[in-house]
Amino acid sequence: MNDAGPRPAGSRNVSGIKATGEKRLVLTTGRAHPALAEAIARELKIELLPIDSRTFANGEIYARYDESVRGSDAFVIQAHSAPINEWLMEQLIMVDALKRASAKRITVVAPFYPYARQDKKGRGREPISARLVADLFKAAGADRIMSVDLHAAQIQGFFDGPVDHLFAMPVLLEHFREKLDPSSLTVVSPDMGRVRVADIWSDKLGAPLAIIHKRRDPLVPNQVSVHEIVGDVDGRVCLLVDDLIDTGRTIVKAAEALKANGATGVVVAATHAVFSDPAIELLQSDAIDSVVVTDTLPVPDDKRFPTLEVLSIAPLLARAIREVFEDGSVTSMFDGAA
Amino acid sequence: MNDAGPRPAGSRNVSGIKATGEKRLVLTTGRAHPALAEAIARELKIELLPIDSRTFANGEIYARYDESVRGSDAFVIQAHSAPINEWLMEQLIMVDALKRASAKRITVVAPFYPYARQDKKGRGREPISARLVADLFKAAGADRIMSVDLHAAQIQGFFDGPVDHLFAMPVLLEHFREKLDPSSLTVVSPDMGRVRVADIWSDKLGAPLAIIHKRRDPLVPNQVSVHEIVGDVDGRVCLLVDDLIDTGRTIVKAAEALKANGATGVVVAATHAVFSDPAIELLQSDAIDSVVVTDTLPVPDDKRFPTLEVLSIAPLLARAIREVFEDGSVTSMFDGAA
Amino acid sequence: MNDAGPRPAGSRNVSGIKATGEKRLVLTTGRAHPALAEAIARELKIELLPIDSRTFANGEIYARYDESVRGSDAFVIQAHSAPINEWLMEQLIMVDALKRASAKRITVVAPFYPYARQDKKGRGREPISARLVADLFKAAGADRIMSVDLHAAQIQGFFDGPVDHLFAMPVLLEHFREKLDPSSLTVVSPDMGRVRVADIWSDKLGAPLAIIHKRRDPLVPNQVSVHEIVGDVDGRVCLLVDDLIDTGRTIVKAAEALKANGATGVVVAATHAVFSDPAIELLQSDAIDSVVVTDTLPVPDDKRFPTLEVLSIAPLLARAIREVFEDGSVTSMFDGAA
Amino acid sequence: MNDAGPRPAGSRNVSGIKATGEKRLVLTTGRAHPALAEAIARELKIELLPIDSRTFANGEIYARYDESVRGSDAFVIQAHSAPINEWLMEQLIMVDALKRASAKRITVVAPFYPYARQDKKGRGREPISARLVADLFKAAGADRIMSVDLHAAQIQGFFDGPVDHLFAMPVLLEHFREKLDPSSLTVVSPDMGRVRVADIWSDKLGAPLAIIHKRRDPLVPNQVSVHEIVGDVDGRVCLLVDDLIDTGRTIVKAAEALKANGATGVVVAATHAVFSDPAIELLQSDAIDSVVVTDTLPVPDDKRFPTLEVLSIAPLLARAIREVFEDGSVTSMFDGAA
Amino acid sequence: MNDAGPRPAGSRNVSGIKATGEKRLVLTTGRAHPALAEAIARELKIELLPIDSRTFANGEIYARYDESVRGSDAFVIQAHSAPINEWLMEQLIMVDALKRASAKRITVVAPFYPYARQDKKGRGREPISARLVADLFKAAGADRIMSVDLHAAQIQGFFDGPVDHLFAMPVLLEHFREKLDPSSLTVVSPDMGRVRVADIWSDKLGAPLAIIHKRRDPLVPNQVSVHEIVGDVDGRVCLLVDDLIDTGRTIVKAAEALKANGATGVVVAATHAVFSDPAIELLQSDAIDSVVVTDTLPVPDDKRFPTLEVLSIAPLLARAIREVFEDGSVTSMFDGAA
Amino acid sequence: MNDAGPRPAGSRNVSGIKATGEKRLVLTTGRAHPALAEAIARELKIELLPIDSRTFANGEIYARYDESVRGSDAFVIQAHSAPINEWLMEQLIMVDALKRASAKRITVVAPFYPYARQDKKGRGREPISARLVADLFKAAGADRIMSVDLHAAQIQGFFDGPVDHLFAMPVLLEHFREKLDPSSLTVVSPDMGRVRVADIWSDKLGAPLAIIHKRRDPLVPNQVSVHEIVGDVDGRVCLLVDDLIDTGRTIVKAAEALKANGATGVVVAATHAVFSDPAIELLQSDAIDSVVVTDTLPVPDDKRFPTLEVLSIAPLLARAIREVFEDGSVTSMFDGAA
Repeated sequence: MNDAGPRPAGSRNVSGIKATGEKRLVLTTGRAHPALAEAIARELKIELLPIDSRTFANGEIYARYDESVRGSDAFVIQAHSAPINEWLMEQLIMVDALKRASAKRITVVAPFYPYARQDKKGRGREPISARLVADLFKAAGADRIMSVDLHAAQIQGFFDGPVDHLFAMPVLLEHFREKLDPSSLTVVSPDMGRVRVADIWSDKLGAPLAIIHKRRDPLVPNQVSVHEIVGDVDGRVCLLVDDLIDTGRTIVKAAEALKANGATGVVVAATHAVFSDPAIELLQSDAIDSVVVTDTLPVPDDKRFPTLEVLSIAPLLARAIREVFEDGSVTSMFDGAA
Repeated sequence: MNDAGPRPAGSRNVSGIKATGEKRLVLTTGRAHPALAEAIARELKIELLPIDSRTFANGEIYARYDESVRGSDAFVIQAHSAPINEWLMEQLIMVDALKRASAKRITVVAPFYPYARQDKKGRGREPISARLVADLFKAAGADRIMSVDLHAAQIQGFFDGPVDHLFAMPVLLEHFREKLDPSSLTVVSPDMGRVRVADIWSDKLGAPLAIIHKRRDPLVPNQVSVHEIVGDVDGRVCLLVDDLIDTGRTIVKAAEALKANGATGVVVAATHAVFSDPAIELLQSDAIDSVVVTDTLPVPDDKRFPTLEVLSIAPLLARAIREVFEDGSVTSMFDGAA
Repeated sequence: MNDAGPRPAGSRNVSGIKATGEKRLVLTTGRAHPALAEAIARELKIELLPIDSRTFANGEIYARYDESVRGSDAFVIQAHSAPINEWLMEQLIMVDALKRASAKRITVVAPFYPYARQDKKGRGREPISARLVADLFKAAGADRIMSVDLHAAQIQGFFDGPVDHLFAMPVLLEHFREKLDPSSLTVVSPDMGRVRVADIWSDKLGAPLAIIHKRRDPLVPNQVSVHEIVGDVDGRVCLLVDDLIDTGRTIVKAAEALKANGATGVVVAATHAVFSDPAIELLQSDAIDSVVVTDTLPVPDDKRFPTLEVLSIAPLLARAIREVFEDGSVTSMFDGAA
Repeated sequence: MNDAGPRPAGSRNVSGIKATGEKRLVLTTGRAHPALAEAIARELKIELLPIDSRTFANGEIYARYDESVRGSDAFVIQAHSAPINEWLMEQLIMVDALKRASAKRITVVAPFYPYARQDKKGRGREPISARLVADLFKAAGADRIMSVDLHAAQIQGFFDGPVDHLFAMPVLLEHFREKLDPSSLTVVSPDMGRVRVADIWSDKLGAPLAIIHKRRDPLVPNQVSVHEIVGDVDGRVCLLVDDLIDTGRTIVKAAEALKANGATGVVVAATHAVFSDPAIELLQSDAIDSVVVTDTLPVPDDKRFPTLEVLSIAPLLARAIREVFEDGSVTSMFDGAA
Repeated sequence: MNDAGPRPAGSRNVSGIKATGEKRLVLTTGRAHPALAEAIARELKIELLPIDSRTFANGEIYARYDESVRGSDAFVIQAHSAPINEWLMEQLIMVDALKRASAKRITVVAPFYPYARQDKKGRGREPISARLVADLFKAAGADRIMSVDLHAAQIQGFFDGPVDHLFAMPVLLEHFREKLDPSSLTVVSPDMGRVRVADIWSDKLGAPLAIIHKRRDPLVPNQVSVHEIVGDVDGRVCLLVDDLIDTGRTIVKAAEALKANGATGVVVAATHAVFSDPAIELLQSDAIDSVVVTDTLPVPDDKRFPTLEVLSIAPLLARAIREVFEDGSVTSMFDGAA
Repeated sequence: MNDAGPRPAGSRNVSGIKATGEKRLVLTTGRAHPALAEAIARELKIELLPIDSRTFANGEIYARYDESVRGSDAFVIQAHSAPINEWLMEQLIMVDALKRASAKRITVVAPFYPYARQDKKGRGREPISARLVADLFKAAGADRIMSVDLHAAQIQGFFDGPVDHLFAMPVLLEHFREKLDPSSLTVVSPDMGRVRVADIWSDKLGAPLAIIHKRRDPLVPNQVSVHEIVGDVDGRVCLLVDDLIDTGRTIVKAAEALKANGATGVVVAATHAVFSDPAIELLQSDAIDSVVVTDTLPVPDDKRFPTLEVLSIAPLLARAIREVFEDGSVTSMFDGAA
């Protein structure tokens, strides 16, 4: 990888050497989710950068690249599944090693942005860990961040530099277009906070919208929240959409309310399969007919259940990486503009 | 202001002078809304720091303090009303002058945070101006920011340092507690995005909640949005709550929908009276019975109409400034905890 | 704009993709002085980058690029005429949007550097706004600054990065070489502070130098300043040179003094036509025969008077931009060296 | 905690409030080793700052202080035992929360500095994780670091700010002075890299020095390393000293070599009890008579074996924290000077 | 220096210790001009901080403080005489040691600012070394700078923080008020660039102004510069004023021209006695009757000649340091205002 | 140097110009050791960048490049011999000028890293000057550092960016492979701190190792250090290896001890020939048969003595510079890997 390419004879000047600039894309991955990185590499028709990464006996992580990365445009892929702090630290160490090895530009690829839900101080004396994570990436040497379906779009503003914010919707939509019949479908938001996402789904699929509203009964003081359904679900197939599924509790409650209100089917769609306990158990509830997620986070075999479908996010990430490397347009991937 | 206070005899050491540390609070204001700063100063029983600020013939702003600010804990108050960029630049210049004059700590007091609605990239190649504003304050020399009812709480994470986020709700609530009867009251959110604020109001007032939902009619393709009302408003007094009123269009549409659905009264409450044209005209609609705002932004006489009430935010800001100066607790102002 | 160009077959390495580096110049402009930016674009034979920039009802500015700027070498042109803070803020927002859209390098083109006259603390507790402006550009994401005839050359040192400091003199000189006869010409500095500029003009035109010296009469205590003329102006055509004309008061007083001392003609030359009130009225004084400026700032039709000539600075800026883009030499534009 | 103390009447100036400066020490701890923090608090006769820290289902950590920390001089104690990345991240989050809650000064107390052994690039493309850790602390908001017996003293230079580097030797020495007889004692360094530490011990105890030298036999090519003993150990009690014990392999090999060469007893002393597997098993070897460590890292009951003695580092840390808070001298704790 | 002072009983809180804040001024000096630092210390009635500073055989400098500086308000005095880079580096090292020893605030006292004349790029590819020096001070850890009579006032803007800019004029004026008779005195600027300083002197002394103008004779092409005198000097005593005297060439040429034009006496006043060769020889010219400077730079005995008078700048610096330490006003030292 | 190379027709887009990226290596040098820079330039078959560098009468340094460096990949070579602070400051000024002249990337080449031995706080209140130097390079604008045989490898971590750490061993080894017979050779470390370097030599040459151990005699209290020899040197040729020779005292003492213990020859090898007084005298001791160093520092004729051999480090530096410029691998120069 060492040839600077042909240089025209005579390009040596009295006080310097001229050469045609070249750029080199390299792709490397932490150990959280190698299958995703390998799928991206296959899409790009390249090999992953060989790396020796290890965890020592006392838990300290070590990483070293086996090939020169000097001058490269490096993309460091890591999935932030549990143990999330291990994988975050591994990625920071990988970025530090790239910086010190003279990589030209370093893009952190974090399909599921870690700590995205800690995006503000809900009360005094809380951290804003999503901002902290952006600062840690910066401190380690990251120039850019690429992520998918940020929990709050404002997280883009936490990083002092470019953030490529990708949307999994095209991937999920393509899947559902073949499987669902808009005429009998209702898109459902599991709570008030996610209704904007559901609204876009409703628009794209040409299906009506419904909302699950958890709130106290205003007429009965101190009563716990009820799951009120806004919109028409009776006799319809419901598509519950969210950005992530963590323990699955919210989703299952929503599904049960839908079925109780006459829904004939409930399909769940989410980008990030966090799947903390007891998600696997809950998602196999009778109230849910099928669950569709992407592989921004690893879904190991023991977390795969019969009604689960995992779509690959790799083609989307691969295309975005290529656009970034080639100075193309990531924006155009989502709205068709230049 | 030059006395270092009594020092015990003998405190002169062989290699140094010891003195008791002292701290001094100073309050200064830009020209956007002097009445607010004066009211805060009155609450604190101090005078505003004398300042000579001017705009030159070509639009450049100049500011100079008439008293020493060396070692002070300085609070720079500015309201970000139109012309908003003038007032932002004036505040930046005032911060720069404080920094260069050896103020010890500088807190930007921006009751209405400028550019708060540009808090994310909705599409590619947009700025995140709310983050930019945080960066500009930092670059000028601000150590801390104090603001009221941020449009998005995530903006706290845009500044690399402490942000005191105050809530106007106690001020507004106190006003309404005397005027409205919870048994006939419904709290209404003017759109989906503000429902969390309305939820807290509903809880505090012990009144039920309703929501205005603007959306396309899913059954009629390409039809423009309809204002659907979720919740019971028929025969009730509706309290429409929002963080700000800009042109007033959303609020008026919501009020009209409420009246059309049987509301017997519509009261509007908002923290920030941006009141851009044609807000003054619209807010005097028959659909709105009264409007209550605070004076985080100046409301000049020609913008005051008979059904408008402007509550003073000064006591709240004064108390927060005192807590900050005295290392007390701002959090405790809102939830009673330490 | 998306083709990465032909890549030799086989350039795919086991662990990476190689491509020939490319660079792309893009030119964008704020709304202060679009004519200047268009003229520069014409010189460079390119189109300006399409941009959607607007001012909202409450004065907040918004800007979004309509084409990808990823990887580009971007030049952001803005003129800092009144309302100067609006245009400064617009430029900062445009820089922020470029940074977040992955532009590779961002050059702020500010032909007239804003706040250049606030370049030091004349007294205690003043700001140094010219340094503040440099810090704001940096905070927004500017890598470089290009400006013309800085009021104080030290402002170059306010920015932590390259500043391309251009001189309008070649443009103005070329104009005068055809119009003025050196044998009857005297170059005049309107005050002590600008004499170095006048000295260079004197040298280039081969004409003698005179200076207007405003000072107290030392023999008459407390008397206001007199305009003393140092040098020979009787029976000669005087060329009054300055970097900028703001209200025009200094220039007119100088011209009157010259005429009173026997000058047969007074021609005024300045780079920056700030032209604040009452400049247009004053510059049409009988004491001034003609005024020559450049268009670093917009000179709208209602500010154009019969004896005014406005020279285009666009060719100079275009050439400098091209040199910067092509890694040529800006220095060589002014002294003929490499 | 809110009283600003008595202020002399009349201290209110026309433009400000004066108050006597006060400072407040607060101590907080992560969850890795609460016993150490509690012991330090007892030494200082204070309570630990109440904190709510938790790990969510997906591994994300959350921390919130239950009392105001505004204006405080905060010390954040954490032990970096396995899982080391969890505890590091928890400490970073705790620092972020302090910064955003307006703590005046934040000192990271890391008795065992994490990743200290990755302090240089041994080969190309390695990270320098010890520097990265310093950068992460800085990015989170730490002003200062306090640590004990850094693996390499140069790590002090990795942090851009004050590092209080404490030495456990006084604690260990005091223990051994009562137990060992210098006339029959030899201090032994387990390898070449730690000989300087052993040299100081030798000097302080007035006992001779020996060194274990692992090297290839130069006369037999490709032979593996032998453990050569430099110095006199026959018939003597050997004190093996090191900064840390990780897996224990080096120490056990050294002890065996000493016994094989006639040592009558082998005592091991180290500051940091990392004790990764299989340390507990190895350290109970017959070759080792006793092991003495400090509690910079937690030593849970299941890692305590009959011949292990754990000395408390808390008094040393408590005294250093007090000196830092009171602007005393940490240096004087170790060499008796001012 | 270790007593934290009396603390009221009971100030121990459940979660912290409170103590009255104290501040301590310490004064330290490099080796360039110890007499100046000692004189300042005498004025302040304190001792200099003991320091061990040395230059090793290979030219590397070492510095270590012999007393604790923890929490102190430290002033680092250094004169920047030749070898100027040695003394600059020594001061940077002293600042680094203070920073790492936990000094609370560090003020660089550089009475003669090094590299002040390299304050702009006169031509392309030059450094701006005066800005570089500000950056080096910042990088080492300086919070503030104090200097006297900066060559260009804009240098204040090179430092991102407070700069206390003192003026030696009061010291020099007091000296001349007793010695010179305004009725026969003329203040003279040695060249165009320094005329503003001379103008202030003229005003303060109530004496008329004259200027030496070096320029080409416009009527004789290519002729070298002539020293033209603007103003009345015949039969008068001339006070030549400048900020510094380096080689003395400009001053002597000016003095000779004054004498040639009938001046009956020439007195030279300057703040900074750089006195590079051959200044000592030239300043003893018959054209100069006396030279008055301050001791911002050391004037060793072998550079003192009969007509030279050196005034002490120490009282001015001592007062400024005290004002800074006590949060008083430096501005008021010069214009009588608060 | 101004041709942007051929661009395909039609590459002009509606909104931009595209050009093939080019990169240009330039090499420049300070005045400490021009011969080294010239040798490197010869190896690279280029000319050094013409520069005008000077020291003014008062010791201030000035530097200006005579050719455009815009967009270049610049390497700034300086040797840090005495007067070391002069040369350090010259290099900083050269970096500042490059930065302001728009060089694209700046690599400081410091073959002997200045202040490398001040790499930690040995005692309280010391500076860490090696870190300070890294910060100064960063502040001036350096992007990268290249150095040879750092005194402590941890210094790599002092710089926040890539450090190319080269090893002189291949150069020295090649020399000795021809001259020394492994069968009669012993490699000797002059003290405990350098034994790792000697170990590598021993391995590469296939010769046994010995160590000089300076220590107190443990059996005789308060006795000064003795030079104990560990390993077999009787009847053998000894190769004493170290990273630098400063005053030569340690080396001569070691050589004398070796001879006293029966060594038949003593050859000294070191990378950096600091050679402070009285090194030249001492190194000509009868105990030393020959001394071999490299020219990382200048060795002027008056420091060359008959038994000294100076090897050129230029080929190594030239190769590393080429690898860096061409995005090759510096790592591979030393271990044969990619």
